Amino acid sequence: MENTSIEKPFVVGVDIGGTNTVFGIVDARGNIISSAAIKTKCCETIEEYVDKLCDNLLPLIIAQGGVDKIKGIGIGAPNGNYYKGTIEFAPNLPWKGIIPLAALIEDKLSIPTVLTNDANAAAVGEMTYGVARGMKDFIMITLGTGVGSGIVINGQMVYGHDGFAGELGHVIVRRDNGRICGCGRKGCLEAYCSATGLARTAREVLASSTEPSLLRDLDVENITSKDVYDAAVQGDVIAKDIFEKTGTLLGEALADAIAFSSPEAIVLFGGLAKSGKYIIEPIQKAIDANILKIFKGKTRLLVSELKDSDAAVLGASALAWELKDME
Amino acid sequence: MENTSIEKPFVVGVDIGGTNTVFGIVDARGNIISSAAIKTKCCETIEEYVDKLCDNLLPLIIAQGGVDKIKGIGIGAPNGNYYKGTIEFAPNLPWKGIIPLAALIEDKLSIPTVLTNDANAAAVGEMTYGVARGMKDFIMITLGTGVGSGIVINGQMVYGHDGFAGELGHVIVRRDNGRICGCGRKGCLEAYCSATGLARTAREVLASSTEPSLLRDLDVENITSKDVYDAAVQGDVIAKDIFEKTGTLLGEALADAIAFSSPEAIVLFGGLAKSGKYIIEPIQKAIDANILKIFKGKTRLLVSELKDSDAAVLGASALAWELKDME
Repeated sequence: MENTSIEKPFVVGVDIGGTNTVFGIVDARGNIISSAAIKTKCCETIEEYVDKLCDNLLPLIIAQGGVDKIKGIGIGAPNGNYYKGTIEFAPNLPWKGIIPLAALIEDKLSIPTVLTNDANAAAVGEMTYGVARGMKDFIMITLGTGVGSGIVINGQMVYGHDGFAGELGHVIVRRDNGRICGCGRKGCLEAYCSATGLARTAREVLASSTEPSLLRDLDVENITSKDVYDAAVQGDVIAKDIFEKTGTLLGEALADAIAFSSPEAIVLFGGLAKSGKYIIEPIQKAIDANILKIFKGKTRLLVSELKDSDAAVLGASALAWELKDME
Repeated sequence: MENTSIEKPFVVGVDIGGTNTVFGIVDARGNIISSAAIKTKCCETIEEYVDKLCDNLLPLIIAQGGVDKIKGIGIGAPNGNYYKGTIEFAPNLPWKGIIPLAALIEDKLSIPTVLTNDANAAAVGEMTYGVARGMKDFIMITLGTGVGSGIVINGQMVYGHDGFAGELGHVIVRRDNGRICGCGRKGCLEAYCSATGLARTAREVLASSTEPSLLRDLDVENITSKDVYDAAVQGDVIAKDIFEKTGTLLGEALADAIAFSSPEAIVLFGGLAKSGKYIIEPIQKAIDANILKIFKGKTRLLVSELKDSDAAVLGASALAWELKDME
């Protein structure tokens, strides 16, 4: 890692999710030296949360030689604004309005701190430690509770003029009778191709046919993408059809994204991405069927090789290596 | 212009269209000192075309003091590949396959030559001389025979990994029963929102109603976007409805583009963009109605102020000022 100094050989990665806040000390080779977690909803105020986070992080830092050994702290959080270091109006976090989290932590620990949204952090992680190493143009798609994206162009993260670029989960893929999305609009990609979107498709498909399926043995209202995967692995036709529908919609949207930035690769991350051929084949088929001729066969479809449990912390930490550009 | 040297105070801009090739000498302030044109289909081979172009360009160069006074030549052409300096499989140009045009001209005149597609050239021109001066994140949309786009992110043109990025005219805006597009696919933005797309909409609207319209006095098969504009100016309800439909579709697509790169502005250029409020108001309305909440009201919708006749040459020439980065 060319930008590691011997004096400051470590960075900290913090991944803030709706349930847990996971953090760890990372070295220049992407090893997580130590890690811990607190509940994101542990505290009544953001100040108490920051206190608790720092109280739990500081022992890990001290074990590596103290704050002088830490080049920076990188945070990945929903609705994170890179330019301002703020979390803004995040629907799934306990704090409302605009939270200047990077500044609060920097004040407390005197370590340079940078923050971006979780999908951007994943993209930086993939570029630093994952399958996108060496790539200057790629798009990271995170398929979890929502659909997130992090876009890299000319070797740089795309933040846009306001710090919020890269919301491919909210392009409209169905203009007529589109599904309601968590964002309040209708027909967003996220409403179809997130893990929860796939579960909605499962309920629709099961309701609209009487074909036998292993999924009919389950409580339909609580079906998960994992259930659908397990059924597909056992050869369940309905389960495969659910993946087919989900992958097709995602591939159609990705063909449009390729027309925008012509990336070398699209990297998929998250639970759904681990469904292997059941999701990858229909995505690839839909890309091929929908892509403009000059882009045909040029953009690789890859699955992240980073471990789920590590990727979020690694991605966030990777942001901190980039702090050299800001000093 | 910080990158002008006293030794080489001029650049050349060449705009290659399906009918005419226009070229001119441009100074650092964006004045076109002199210009001329040849027919793009003047010659049987690309070699003869290059000879003819250079024969006509050289007198203009000599009048400014010779090739030593020229910093570079910038070319805008359909299907232009910036990385390779080639025109690749351009359906509307007389030469087939891959044409190494930049190299052919550079060999002939010994002046560094750079080439990109026409919409990218327009974006560079807008950033250098037009309403996008000082902007680091914007999207240029050219509304002509086709719909082109040039995307600027972090102050840089987006070329993608292969040199062909920025084909927003070919995102799919209608998945079901979409119109056939010149690219061979169905439902592309270009099939609806180019000048020819608007004329197709005019024919559809006229055929699907019996409402009176000034447009019914015209030969329906040969209606142009200018005819529709003239009728709208006279208060024709059908003509206004045609603009409304066109602008709505374009605004919907632009709302998705904003979710990608969160630009400071979208700059419209070309004949249709000059239709004023008839096209701008429905575009803005559709953007507002379709945009993700965090982007609401943030991206300005602007119309290029460059003169149509100058813009293409200016845009292409502006590329040549950037040659400093490549030397």
